[in-house]
Parts: sequence; structure tokens; C-alpha cells
Amino acid sequence: VTALNRLKAIVGSHGWIETPADVARYATDYRRLYGGPTPIVLRPGSTAEVASIVTACAEAGLAIVPQGGNTSLVGGSVPTAHGGEVILSLERMNRIRAFAPSDATITVEAGCTLAAVQAAAAEAGQLFPLRLGSQGTCQIGGNLSTNAGGSNVLHYGNARDLVLGLEVVLPDGTVWDGLRALRKDNTGYNLKQLFIGAEGTLGIITAAVLKLSPQPKAVETAFLAVPDVDAAVALLNLVKDSAEYGVTAFELMSRASLDLAQARLAGGRTPLPLEAAGWFVLLEIVGGGTLNDALMALLTEAQDRGLLLDGVVAGSLAQAEEFWRLREEISDAQTAAGGSVRCDIAVPISRMADFITAASLAVREIVPEVRIIAYGHVGDGNVHFNPLRAVEAAPEEFLRHAPAISHVVDDIAHALGGSISAEHGVGQAKRDELPNYKSPVELDLFRLIKRALDPRNTMNPGKLLARS
Amino acid sequence: VTALNRLKAIVGSHGWIETPADVARYATDYRRLYGGPTPIVLRPGSTAEVASIVTACAEAGLAIVPQGGNTSLVGGSVPTAHGGEVILSLERMNRIRAFAPSDATITVEAGCTLAAVQAAAAEAGQLFPLRLGSQGTCQIGGNLSTNAGGSNVLHYGNARDLVLGLEVVLPDGTVWDGLRALRKDNTGYNLKQLFIGAEGTLGIITAAVLKLSPQPKAVETAFLAVPDVDAAVALLNLVKDSAEYGVTAFELMSRASLDLAQARLAGGRTPLPLEAAGWFVLLEIVGGGTLNDALMALLTEAQDRGLLLDGVVAGSLAQAEEFWRLREEISDAQTAAGGSVRCDIAVPISRMADFITAASLAVREIVPEVRIIAYGHVGDGNVHFNPLRAVEAAPEEFLRHAPAISHVVDDIAHALGGSISAEHGVGQAKRDELPNYKSPVELDLFRLIKRALDPRNTMNPGKLLARS
Repeated sequence: VTALNRLKAIVGSHGWIETPADVARYATDYRRLYGGPTPIVLRPGSTAEVASIVTACAEAGLAIVPQGGNTSLVGGSVPTAHGGEVILSLERMNRIRAFAPSDATITVEAGCTLAAVQAAAAEAGQLFPLRLGSQGTCQIGGNLSTNAGGSNVLHYGNARDLVLGLEVVLPDGTVWDGLRALRKDNTGYNLKQLFIGAEGTLGIITAAVLKLSPQPKAVETAFLAVPDVDAAVALLNLVKDSAEYGVTAFELMSRASLDLAQARLAGGRTPLPLEAAGWFVLLEIVGGGTLNDALMALLTEAQDRGLLLDGVVAGSLAQAEEFWRLREEISDAQTAAGGSVRCDIAVPISRMADFITAASLAVREIVPEVRIIAYGHVGDGNVHFNPLRAVEAAPEEFLRHAPAISHVVDDIAHALGGSISAEHGVGQAKRDELPNYKSPVELDLFRLIKRALDPRNTMNPGKLLARS
Repeated sequence: VTALNRLKAIVGSHGWIETPADVARYATDYRRLYGGPTPIVLRPGSTAEVASIVTACAEAGLAIVPQGGNTSLVGGSVPTAHGGEVILSLERMNRIRAFAPSDATITVEAGCTLAAVQAAAAEAGQLFPLRLGSQGTCQIGGNLSTNAGGSNVLHYGNARDLVLGLEVVLPDGTVWDGLRALRKDNTGYNLKQLFIGAEGTLGIITAAVLKLSPQPKAVETAFLAVPDVDAAVALLNLVKDSAEYGVTAFELMSRASLDLAQARLAGGRTPLPLEAAGWFVLLEIVGGGTLNDALMALLTEAQDRGLLLDGVVAGSLAQAEEFWRLREEISDAQTAAGGSVRCDIAVPISRMADFITAASLAVREIVPEVRIIAYGHVGDGNVHFNPLRAVEAAPEEFLRHAPAISHVVDDIAHALGGSISAEHGVGQAKRDELPNYKSPVELDLFRLIKRALDPRNTMNPGKLLARS
């Protein structure tokens, strides 16, 4: 109680939440799969308050779960079932601290939503290119802590590629001010990249200097039906080989995943009839004045090579947004459908078709009637391969097979040189699987680093690595 | 002696060098500024041999300096004056292990020269975009250990941005096999980025999976005279704002730096008369069929805005290579001239003109007669700001002022939010300056990581951090 009172005093009366009804949305993830009891939710308003909280918690032996928009798909942003962690929400730290358009940089606090960062950049005619379905809710601190990917990685890189500097509160409460705005700096270990993607287990990211890009002069968006995954990959290579434009998105979607999304969008018209094919691609390219000509030439070439069954090019921004809405609706539609297993897989791009074929077969051996909700950022070798119960099957019944499905899909990805978590991270969901796919040498290095930076294991314990 | 015999047995008779005359070129850096005594030079032929060496050295308490092409500008690849380190040259580990053009990846051993990697990629019509003056000599393992920059960073990123996976021999002799070929992989701490740029102080990079890019369809190279540094930065922003092409290089060169290079190239004709301006820019852009038109439009626009005094566009590949030869000759020409201080500075791009003005003034207060050899990758906010003795001044006399010059230039860069080593690293040269410009928090983190991974401090001791 003394410790909690000290924490309350640090953040002031608006800065903490204890009422169970109000705590609930912080203590449970948005899919209601993960969560646990917490003594208190703290909402600090400044880096100094975060530092004081971390110091107080260290002294009281309290563990901390840092939380952004709580959109984690792996239970990374909520307590473990074990519970007892203080939840430290960054949501009140949502200021743009500095904006330097002439340097194409912006300095933001961790609690800014991704959409707010995008909007601030856009106001000055620039682009912050990270693009996620959850961008209205997720926060940039969480995006960086999890090295978010999304739909623009192909052209602009992952979240870690968009960061010039960081401010981090370390596990002992000291503040590392690494808010540099430099494109090049070779003065020591790259601490920044250690904290990015560490899922809050090494410290709390409180602010960042982000790289901006010029807004594209012209954008073309096309919705394409392809014969199969092999054709999609061949199309990708054809698209990437152009000098006339940049490829900002190449999203593959299985017929079944679009069926789900369409149903949830009240069955509106899809850009192409979904009966046309088993696989579809959402393509976005950026360039200059002759972009539309270049796209038309590309599509003709693709058709000649047998890589394209049909296609439609967005005639307006509104139509392009419709294409994207369909793509972005898949994830929520699947959650709403209930009874699915999420596998966030990466493989070398040349193995994508092999992976999908082998994984689909293997899953059907476990559950013959299953819908393969496969979609994602195939341009990066990343597919969300999510087996979903048949329409008539009960979710609980299907989910009995979840561990077996997850296991076999991850095994196949691993055997093809792949990753069992391309962009979602490890969190609680994949933590106990990690030792099956990582060498003891690599896990030892993880533990060595964790112990060096967080010897008391108070920073997001039980995520990524088991509580030891 | 027993330890040395064990080391000799590991590498076999071709794998070691003891004769002082033969050892010399390994034990001294190429500018003959750094170096120290070594008991033996080891040239292992495989990762297994490297691992055995590291294990044997750990057991014998012998320190190791890993060495690539020995082109370090900061004494990173040779023993300290203190000496006693075994030199482990990777030069015999120069195989291309795998090449997957359809995934745009190549797996190479650390001892491949950068030029060999470039050539292997080019053979399959692809591009490994790292470009350095020393590319015929420097080795990829050294490039990664130092996070090399060079002339293509603007478009393709630093060395660390070109790496998908690594193989590293750790300080205890175990091998971390992180040779993954994935664009996305969020399964734990980013170990790869910790070893990249660590200057061999955390382990020895023995192999890497590198990302390749499509070769540009068209390249245009222009040699431009600009009114001043402000105009150069404004020109950079104008160039970068185009959607018609990518900007692969934007190299600024002071008149004095070109004078040196021209003299060393036997005084051949320069692309523009050097009397035309105080500052010149080497611009390279890549794109498609209409690239030349786009360049011409750009240059017209730049001239209208008063950003350009004169310019010439390379009419052939040979002419473009001439432009580049002039640029790349500057560094060696300066070394040959003797008596200069190298400051490898980065600042936010908008502060570049302020930096050069302030630093030039400050240096002239110390040594009124001085040539400002300033050149480099201004597109990345990086300039090599190298005061050089006046023609009539004796090198030794001038170099008495080196510490004061270095200090004041670094101070100015730091005050502008900059870095005292943008791409050269820390090594021995900048080690003792680091504490003036890094916070104790950051240095503590460096030491924490160093101690966790290399508790005996046998990996390149005395580089980056002081021997403790």
C-alpha cells in the first residue's frame, strides 16, 4: 500500500486508475485472450514521471508492463496470468515535441497514436510511412517496442528503419537521452536497435525522433486476381524490377480471407468478383507523372506472362481506399468470426508458395474442413497464415486443435528458413515456442542481455523470455 | 609458447605469420598512425578455425584484434600501442557461400573484399550498393563491424541496412548462427544490429547474408558548381523532392579538396574549371528511360533558383567514372599531402552550412593559414572536415595543433546535435574523446553490454572503450 501511495503521488490524481471496471480494458488484450490482475494502472504525463515510477517500482520490487494502444496480438501489452504487474500506460504522453521539416524529422512522445504522427507529418506535406490496420489506436511507442511492420515495409522498411533517435527509461529509472536526429553516427553500440523490438523488456521507450519521407507525387492502386501464389511471387519480382516507380505495397489475400472481410463490410461490391480466383493482390506503386502509363504497361506484361487473371485500377482516391478497407478488414473480420489460429510467418520470398502449399496440406490433415485465411505482406516474405474453423464448426471444438496447428505451421516455416513471428513479436503467445526454433546460443545471448540491463527482471516479465 | 603452438596447430602451416617483416603490414594501420606489437598473425580458413582460436585465446588469456582489409581510419583494426593482441585476419575466409538471386540475397564470408561482393552481385544482374573508396581492399566483415557508410547511403542506407543475417564467433568461442535471409523477423532482441558497428569488441563476424537491389536501369552523373554550402543543401532538398528518380549520391567537395585530388591525378582536366566556385557537388541519380530529361529539368530549376553556378552531365560511363575518380582521390591525396586532421562529422542536414562556417572560423583562429579539405556525403548530413596544413607549413608543426583542432571541431558538431564520428567509428582514435560527448548513462550501457558479452575483455580491447 505504501508503494502504491508513492506511485499515486508521482502521477497525481488524474494519473492512476484502480476501479476494476476501469482497469479492465488495460488489463486484458483486445482479443480477450491474455491478461491478468494488476494492482494499479498508472498514466504518467512526462518522462520524469515515468522515471520516478520505474525507480519506485524497482525499490518496491514491483514489475511493470508498459502499454501503448494495447493492440498487441501476442499478449505483449497486458499482465501475464500470473499477474501483479503495474500497468504503465503511455497514453497521456502524446505530444509532438519537435518538428523539423527541413531535416525531414519529427520528435514524438510514445503515446502519440500512429495516426496522429501520420497527420502531423502530412500537415507539412511529408510522410511518416508506417501503415497498420490499427493505426487509429496503436501508439508509436508500442510500434517501436514491437518493431511494427505493416503494409509499407516493402518500400520504407520496418518501424526500426524509421527511427533516428530514442529516449528510454531504463530498468533502474535512469533516462537514456538518445534523441539524436542524425542519419549517420558510428560512435558505439547501436543501443537504439536493441530497445526497438525488445517488447518493453529492457526499458520503456518514452520518445523518438522519426524519419519522414517526401509524400509521393502520384499513387496508383490496383486490385488483381492471380492464378496462384507462384504467379503472385513472379508478379512481385516483375513489379519490383521497374525503374519507373517504387512499390509501396504488395498484399496477397486468399479468396477465403476476402469472403470474410466482404461479409463484415455488409457484403458491398468487391473490386473484382471473388469467384474469379483463389488469390488476389493489392498492389500500390508510387512515382511521378507517367505512373499510370507505367502501371498499364506492367499489367499488360503480367497478363502476357500468364501472371494475371483479372485486375482493376482504382480510378479515384476513394476507390483506392475501398480496396484498402477490404484488405484491412480481414483481421477484425477473422477475430469476429471466432475460432482461428494466427500464424504470423515469414519465409524467404522464393519459398512462399512452398510454405502455403505445405502448411495448408498439413493443417487439413489435422482438421479436414478448414478455411485458410492467408493474407499479408508477401512483398516482404510475410504472410498471416490463419486457419479458421469451417462455418458449421464450433469455435471451441476447432480451437482444441490450435496448439497442433500452430506447431505444424511453425515447423514448416522454420524448416524453410523462416520465422514464427514476422511482425507480431513474441509476447506471451510465442514465448514458450521460441526455444523450439532458436538455438541455445541465441537464447543465451537474449538472457545475457536481459540480465545485464534488467537484473531484477521487473520490465515486462514473462514476455519474450520466461520468468526465471 | 604453448598457447602459440596450439594456435598454430589450429590454422595449419599456411595459417600463421610470425616473421616481423611479414607481420608489419598487419600490425600497423595503412596511414602508419596506429599499431603495436603482436605475438602472431593468424589467418584461419573457416568459422570452425576462428571458433577454435577464440576458445584457445580465451583459455590462454590472450586478447584478439579481428582484422579485415585493415583500412580503418581510427586504428580499429590493429593492436593498441600497449600491444600483445593476437591479430586474427579474416582474409582467407573469402568464399561466396550462397547466392539466391530470386530472393535478392547473397551469403558471403567476412574476408570477401567489398569489390568481390559487388562483382558477384553484378554477375547476376543485381547490385550490392555499398560503395567506398577502399572497396578493392576493405573486406565485408570489416565493413559490417564498422557499419561502413560511403557514397550510396542516401538511397540504400548504411552497411547495417544491407544485412539480413550474421554468423558471429562470440568471445567464449561459441558460434552464433544468425544467417537468416528474412526481410521480417520479430522473434527477440536484434542481436545482428548489436554486432554490426561494434568494431569487433563483442565478437567476430565470420559471415553475413546481404540484401541485394535491382541494378538501376539508368544512371545520370553530374558535376556541379554551387555558390555556397547553403545552396548545396537547398539543392539537395530540391533533388530529393523528385518522384522521377532516386538520388544515390550527393557528394559535396570544397575547392581545396579538389585541388589536392587533381594535383595527385597528374593535373588532368577537371569536369569544370575549379576556379568557378568554392564548392562543388557530385550528383548521381537513378531511374528509368526519361532520366536524362528529368535531370535537365532539375538543373534548369536549380539554376533559376540561384542554386547552381555551372554544371556538366557525364556523357558516358567513362566520364562518370572520371567524376568519381576525382571524388575518391581526395582521401588518399590528403594522406599523401601530410599534416592534416580528420574529423568525420555528422549534423542534422539543416545545420550543415552553420557547421562548416563555424568550424572553419574556429580552426582559423588556431591556425590562420590552413586549407579546409571538406568533402563527403552531405546528403546524409555527413562531412569529412579535414583541416590541412598550408603548403608552406611543415607537417609536424601543423600537427602540434591537431588535438586543439579536433577538439574544437568536435565541440561545434556536438553543439549542433551532431556526431564526432559519422562513419569511421571510434577505434583508438576517438576512444578517449567519447566521454566528452556521450552521457554517462550511455557509456554505462556500453560497458554493461561489453561486460555481459565479453567479461574478460579479450575482444579488441582498447577500442571504442578504454581497457579497464
